[in-house]
Amino acid sequence: MSSSSSAAGAGVTVETINPKVVECEYAVRGEIVIHAQRLQEELQKKPGSHPFDEILYCNIGNPQSLGQQPVTFFREVLALCDHPTILDRDETHALFSADSIARAWQILDQIPGRATGAYSHSQGIKGLRDAIAAGIAARDGYPCKAEDIFLTDGASPAVHMMMQLLLRSEKDGILCPIPQYPLYSASIALHGGHLVRYYLDEATGWGLEISELKKQLEDARSKGITVRALVVINPGNPTGQVLAEENQRQIVEFCKKEGLVLLADEVYQENIYVEDKKFNSFKKIARSMGYEDQDISLVSFQSVSKGYYGECGKRGGYMEVTGFSTEVREQIYKVASVNLFSTEEGDESYESYVAERDGILQSLARRAKALEDAFNSLEGITCNKAEGAMYLFPRIRLPKKAIEAAGNTKPDAFYARRLLDATGIVVVPGSGFGQVPGTWHFRCTILPQEDKIPAIISRFKEFHESFMNEYRD
Amino acid sequence: MSSSSSAAGAGVTVETINPKVVECEYAVRGEIVIHAQRLQEELQKKPGSHPFDEILYCNIGNPQSLGQQPVTFFREVLALCDHPTILDRDETHALFSADSIARAWQILDQIPGRATGAYSHSQGIKGLRDAIAAGIAARDGYPCKAEDIFLTDGASPAVHMMMQLLLRSEKDGILCPIPQYPLYSASIALHGGHLVRYYLDEATGWGLEISELKKQLEDARSKGITVRALVVINPGNPTGQVLAEENQRQIVEFCKKEGLVLLADEVYQENIYVEDKKFNSFKKIARSMGYEDQDISLVSFQSVSKGYYGECGKRGGYMEVTGFSTEVREQIYKVASVNLFSTEEGDESYESYVAERDGILQSLARRAKALEDAFNSLEGITCNKAEGAMYLFPRIRLPKKAIEAAGNTKPDAFYARRLLDATGIVVVPGSGFGQVPGTWHFRCTILPQEDKIPAIISRFKEFHESFMNEYRD
Repeated sequence: MSSSSSAAGAGVTVETINPKVVECEYAVRGEIVIHAQRLQEELQKKPGSHPFDEILYCNIGNPQSLGQQPVTFFREVLALCDHPTILDRDETHALFSADSIARAWQILDQIPGRATGAYSHSQGIKGLRDAIAAGIAARDGYPCKAEDIFLTDGASPAVHMMMQLLLRSEKDGILCPIPQYPLYSASIALHGGHLVRYYLDEATGWGLEISELKKQLEDARSKGITVRALVVINPGNPTGQVLAEENQRQIVEFCKKEGLVLLADEVYQENIYVEDKKFNSFKKIARSMGYEDQDISLVSFQSVSKGYYGECGKRGGYMEVTGFSTEVREQIYKVASVNLFSTEEGDESYESYVAERDGILQSLARRAKALEDAFNSLEGITCNKAEGAMYLFPRIRLPKKAIEAAGNTKPDAFYARRLLDATGIVVVPGSGFGQVPGTWHFRCTILPQEDKIPAIISRFKEFHESFMNEYRD
Repeated sequence: MSSSSSAAGAGVTVETINPKVVECEYAVRGEIVIHAQRLQEELQKKPGSHPFDEILYCNIGNPQSLGQQPVTFFREVLALCDHPTILDRDETHALFSADSIARAWQILDQIPGRATGAYSHSQGIKGLRDAIAAGIAARDGYPCKAEDIFLTDGASPAVHMMMQLLLRSEKDGILCPIPQYPLYSASIALHGGHLVRYYLDEATGWGLEISELKKQLEDARSKGITVRALVVINPGNPTGQVLAEENQRQIVEFCKKEGLVLLADEVYQENIYVEDKKFNSFKKIARSMGYEDQDISLVSFQSVSKGYYGECGKRGGYMEVTGFSTEVREQIYKVASVNLFSTEEGDESYESYVAERDGILQSLARRAKALEDAFNSLEGITCNKAEGAMYLFPRIRLPKKAIEAAGNTKPDAFYARRLLDATGIVVVPGSGFGQVPGTWHFRCTILPQEDKIPAIISRFKEFHESFMNEYRD
């Protein structure tokens, strides 16, 4: 055997793996969650061993894990597409609605050979992309082409693809909001690029100021960073704001002038909880300004994990890619997945479908309001409104004594850990999303089922009061 | 607006995107397939416009696109898990077998809250990993732990994860067989590493010689490359050989001594077509040699796209990861997906399940033999046996005149293009997989339905004879 074997035979350790992997952090599944899982096991083995009966996972936007039921129509169609041989059977009509049977046929007819078990076109099945494009055109009032749609397994792989495409070295940067959903910082780290932070303004309801974008862009450029794209999350995660139309126009103008790709995370487009705001896609805004493919490169991410259906486990999604040359588009790595579409008025399922959808959205709006009011009633906590998405991102003004007691732990992580140990409620420390230095926050989903919200609020209040009594300056 | 905007505003072109993306090639979906899709459109628009009625996609291992029917039991279970509310209904018993209903309950009971629409544990649902681990233990006769299993969306994301983990720079290399499935070269290119080729020996049925591994390893080390892992594809793709046990022991010994991670692509483990060979996992071989976690780092890839069920579109799979420290394992990026398991003897579905499975495997063996014999009967073509997997990789000795006629096109690509234009049969040129310089091959799947094989053979023969008549030296 080769004499050089000992040199190479050191094996694989954290020190010898790709440092980009080690650097990459992903707070929503971080330490606090591992601790929560440990507590859950302890509760299972020894009920009564903690001052709460169950762990409440408010750390992640995972509606069905907290009891939200799937939308019946989608699941009927999915089951029929998975096992199409029953479509012809009489008994099927007793179990499935007529419109879900019709929809399953319609989808299967768009799949070559009706073979749902075959690899599809690498951009996704053409007929499904046609349907998505038609839906986008109806939403925006501007045309959408099926060839611009790439079906993906949720939004994350699409974000990774774009980062992989745009980032050539650590001298390439991406402008990202702070606070941000940590997928972006993680993906930029994994692909070896530079995270260029811009801060959202908490005082104006997490407003996105163009002056801040300019300042951070120029600062990055002065350091030799080539900024390639701007990430905007609308509705916001973890911040829950919905951008105003005028603000969106400014952002489009900024990207056009500065030659930045606009990466629009629009996965919460169906989750809007306030009357006076509505969702506008960045593509609609750009087209309404007269900007076409040649004027701005724009990618919109969408996912079946979010919306009112919350099918996180089903891994479906798409990105709409406009304003890139044919040659660049050919380079985009292509993945395919199955997506779902809703029913139409007049169909057998329509009434129950609308009732399910509206029930979920109205309940989410009530839960958001109840939690927001509760947070705002507490000493040292201020919480902006959740206009959209699934989260609240309250700010806590921690007493000095608490910050000292935290020691080497970040003060918001210390608070979240204390909250978990006392109540079983899992939230994510704001440091996982980024925040203005010296401020502290946490992200809490609005997803626990509505009948549990009052108990959560009272457990939270009790904890917070006792925490403040312990540490008040 | 910033005066530096014009510098950054150049936009996104093939010249300004990540060059690793541009370099990466993926032959099985390359130019010949794009040409085939064009021909198919022409045939649809103008039937009779080509000397064949349909395009036969023998380029990719995609059984259900060529008419293979899904295994009923799997699809029943899948449909029930997708829409569990029907499990309690009487009518369901008329449509679904009793054991698929029982299996669906069993799977749902392993999912927290029975919520198939929720994000799962990031390594995959524990109960499913338990079942996979039990299956591996039964297959190998050695223990397998659920904590070593990572559920993935097919094998490709798992391969990408390992490449991302191991490759730090272009000075890190991975030993890969030539010919190889181009996922490996593509993934190494995307992650910025160095492909270290070792050649399989066509003369000995695509044998894997340890002397060749040593030679290439030492050559790479002398150039300053740190070789981190050895990829072995068994059964082989595109080469179809099944490794002998003694050969596998040598490979394990080699990896242990040289400190290489053994990346075992074992996705064709259920596709074996010869009596005298059987599949042995590398884990079984290593354990039978007395090597445990501390002796060798070993990753085995598996996918639901292959096997007899061929559920390419369902994107399921797992990797078994052994011999890494806890710290390294925690670093492995985690994705989750749903996997499927088979029925048990005595169950209502068992007989039909076995009949479906055996029918598919026996038919594949007959198709492999028929195509192999046909290729071997032709002037200038020799074809090794397909002992496993789904492919034949015949060698063609192209006449000089044909090589000249190819011009700037690779001679095997020229041959594949002529074959497609004359017959509608799509194969992949050997240059997409790598081959000994100066030799030419193509990869042809054995997947067209059995009743089409005679016509394919006669079309192929007719083409080949006329090609040779045109170019014979």
